[in-house]
Order: sequence, then C-alpha cells, then structure tokens
Amino acid sequence: MQKLILVKVGGKVVENPDLLSSLLKHFSSIKGPKVLIHGGGRSATALAKQMGIETKMVDGRRITDKQMLKIVTMVYGGLINRNIVAKLQSIGIQALGLTGADLNYLEAVKRPVKDIDYGYVGDITKVNTEILCPLVEKNIVPVLSPLSHDGKGQILNTNADTIAAEAAIAFSKYFQTELIYCFEMPGVLKDPKDKTSVIPDLTLNDFKKYQEQGIINAGMIPKLDNSFRALSKGVNKIRITNIEGLESGGTILKTN
Amino acid sequence: MQKLILVKVGGKVVENPDLLSSLLKHFSSIKGPKVLIHGGGRSATALAKQMGIETKMVDGRRITDKQMLKIVTMVYGGLINRNIVAKLQSIGIQALGLTGADLNYLEAVKRPVKDIDYGYVGDITKVNTEILCPLVEKNIVPVLSPLSHDGKGQILNTNADTIAAEAAIAFSKYFQTELIYCFEMPGVLKDPKDKTSVIPDLTLNDFKKYQEQGIINAGMIPKLDNSFRALSKGVNKIRITNIEGLESGGTILKTN
Repeated sequence: MQKLILVKVGGKVVENPDLLSSLLKHFSSIKGPKVLIHGGGRSATALAKQMGIETKMVDGRRITDKQMLKIVTMVYGGLINRNIVAKLQSIGIQALGLTGADLNYLEAVKRPVKDIDYGYVGDITKVNTEILCPLVEKNIVPVLSPLSHDGKGQILNTNADTIAAEAAIAFSKYFQTELIYCFEMPGVLKDPKDKTSVIPDLTLNDFKKYQEQGIINAGMIPKLDNSFRALSKGVNKIRITNIEGLESGGTILKTN
Repeated sequence: MQKLILVKVGGKVVENPDLLSSLLKHFSSIKGPKVLIHGGGRSATALAKQMGIETKMVDGRRITDKQMLKIVTMVYGGLINRNIVAKLQSIGIQALGLTGADLNYLEAVKRPVKDIDYGYVGDITKVNTEILCPLVEKNIVPVLSPLSHDGKGQILNTNADTIAAEAAIAFSKYFQTELIYCFEMPGVLKDPKDKTSVIPDLTLNDFKKYQEQGIINAGMIPKLDNSFRALSKGVNKIRITNIEGLESGGTILKTN
C-alpha cells in the first residue's frame, strides 16, 4: 500500500507566523500523499475577547454556544484555514481547505446533552474517505479545519486531535498511514522541564505506568488516549514531535 | 456544448436566513452543472463595527487594510461560505467552498496604488478553469467566496460581481454559460419605485440611453458594465433577477 502522512498541528504553531512558515516548509518537504489538520483555539478565544464574548471551557473543551460557533466558524474555517492554504500554494503545494461540510467529507452529530451542554460540538460519525482518497492520490493536500457538520445544515465544532485520529483510522483501509502530532515540545517528555528527556518509544503499558506515576499528565493524556486508540484501529505509525522533528524525530507510539 | 449556470447572489440575500434558504432551494432545483458566487459586505461591516474597527468605502469599494482583510477572510471565507456549503449539503448538493487559494483556482495581483490605496484588494489575473471543470462535470458545486490570492501567500479581497463575470467568461471556453445576478429586485427597473417596471430585454444601446436619462443609476451601473463586458467576452446569456425569477425571470441582457 502507498504511504499517507497526516500531520496535526496545534494552535501555538499555526498562530505564530514564523512557526507556521517553518512548519509548512517542513511539511512541504514530505514526499507523497499528505493531509494537514489544524487547531486554532487561542485565536478563537482572542477574537471572542475582542468581541466582548466570554469563552467557557470545561475540562479543556470549549462550550460552543451560538455566538462561539460563529467565532470558530470564522476563525477555524476562515482566517486560519484560508491563510494556511494560501501559504501552502506559495510553496508549491496544491492545497484545499475543508470543513466537514465541504464535499461532505466529515459527518457528525451534535453532542447529546448529559451533565454538560457543550452546545454546537460535533461527535464524528463518518469520515468519507471515498471523497478524500481521489484528492490525495492527485497530490491535492486537504487542509482540515476543526469543523464538522450534521448533514442538516449545521456546522459543528470538533476537536482537531480527534479529527486527525479518525481521519487516520479511516485512511488506513487504503493507505499505510503515519499520523504525526506536531506541537511545541520535541516529544513526550519524562521531565516536562527538560526538553532533552524525550521518550523515544512509548507503549500503551509505559503510558499507563507513566500516567500513574504522574510523569505524563494534563494536556498530553487526551492526545495519547486518542493516539493509542488510533493505533489499535489500524493506523500504522504515530509520532508526537515538534516542527524540527517532523521528518523523523519525537516519540513513537508502539502497541505493546 | 453542455450548459453551465453561474448564480451570483448578493449580501442582502445571503445574510438573511429565510432568503438564503429560499435561494438555495431554487438554486438546487437548477439541473446540471452549476456554480454559486456570494458576497457578504454587510456582515463584514457589522463584524468590523462589533470589533470597533471603522469601515472605509470609496465609490462603493471597501478599503481593505490588514485588519479589514482579517475580517473579510473570516466573514467571506469562513462564516458565510461554510454555512452556505453546509446548507447546500443538507438539500443534497455536493458543494465545495473555495477562496482563490483553494486549488489555486483564482489568481490575482494586489491592486497597484494610484490615487487611492485599496489595500489588500486583488485584481484577477487568471481563473483556472482546468481545476474547476472536472469538479462541475462531477456535479460538485463550487461555492466561490469573494477572496482571491496572489500566489505568494497573500489572501486578497475581490469583488464578487467581478469574480462571477470572470469565472463565466473563463468557463465559456468549455460550456454554454448562463450568468445570473440574483439580488433583491426582480430585474433592471425603469422606475426604481415600481417593481413591476422590469425591463425584459436590455441591449448595450438601451443601457447607455437609460444611463444618460438617469433611469439606470447607482449600484446597477458597475453590475451592468461587468455584465456587458462578460457578454462581449463569450458568456452566452446574462440575466438580472431576484430569487423568484431564478429559473426564468428578470432582465435578459442582449448584445445589440
């Protein structure tokens, strides 16, 4: 099978013009079919503040009421996505920016209200790879924003890490997939204060052990939960790294 | 040659949810390949106001400084475009929302500064129909936002009426094209106060005569200038109408 590389890049990278340029340069040097998935939460929060709208988060997840949905549609689907696409075009990448509604590539349902009403948040029900495969096979690079839709005309806010994992799983039927989570750290660290303490290989057992010992915590846990799930569902390789490590560095996740 | 219908819809329609739903319903009933082009100036002005940013216009054209570019990228490329696409998907249309950077379909140059510095405004240099034709032939409906790019990483603001005319001209090499300008009036009116005074056929000579007599004025003139130019450059048919007239009503422009 042909190889497909999916790179998820977080807000701290895409929201800094120099880091973004550096990332896109590294990204463009990856050979063969590839997909870019981006976040943008900090910019959404900043715009909300400028508009006098309060940002509410529960366990790191954004409460997306009607006004916040408007903001994330503008920031994720407009500002960040369109600018990444323009920058990729300028370095010779035939990019196409998508929300889940475009070509109906990502179907979701509005999250049912249980203890918390997350508002217009979408839980993924289907990644339509039959739409995306012909694109990546033609060297078109889909740039996926963290927005899905419900098929009834409603855009929904969906976590970018989750889209990356679900897209990688769905593509694994047709490609040998590698999913790279690119963030500001060189990998999963044994000591968060020591950037040289990258764990080169991380098994699910290691992850559980480090989690118990409090070595891995906070923001890394949902990312790693997502990743190990994707690994168990057919994704061939998952790495967690920073821009400099995009080609080969960082932490490689391993099944036990 | 196969027929292709391009519908340009103005801000007053896309910014009113009921009118937009009605438009999209009429649009979806058009058979065969089609393209939708939308504006959104009023929403951009409203967001600017909410953010405490002043909107400057010269002869009906927006001065697009750095802050205003951010706003139009969010509003045109995000909010309006993504919501139209989601709504089209909900009525069975395989829509794809584009800026000029997406698939590099619309190339432009930043308008040179003469008397007025329009800022980040793009003058169209090329419509890449070789990118768009395979899409419309597969019944994918491109939804074109009024944003182009310069190929050097810069998104630019480009008038939607102009994009509609230039796209229609470019498609005329491959399709029998009909361009429909859909706005709030049933057509070009002899008396702006009388909605039943639609001029059914309008030649370039009539247009010049009416213009001299002050019967056609203000906002209609650049639209008609654009249209007669498109007609002379190979577009087969141009109509100016409202939602109700989308299928067959309004004013038909004629070469003399």
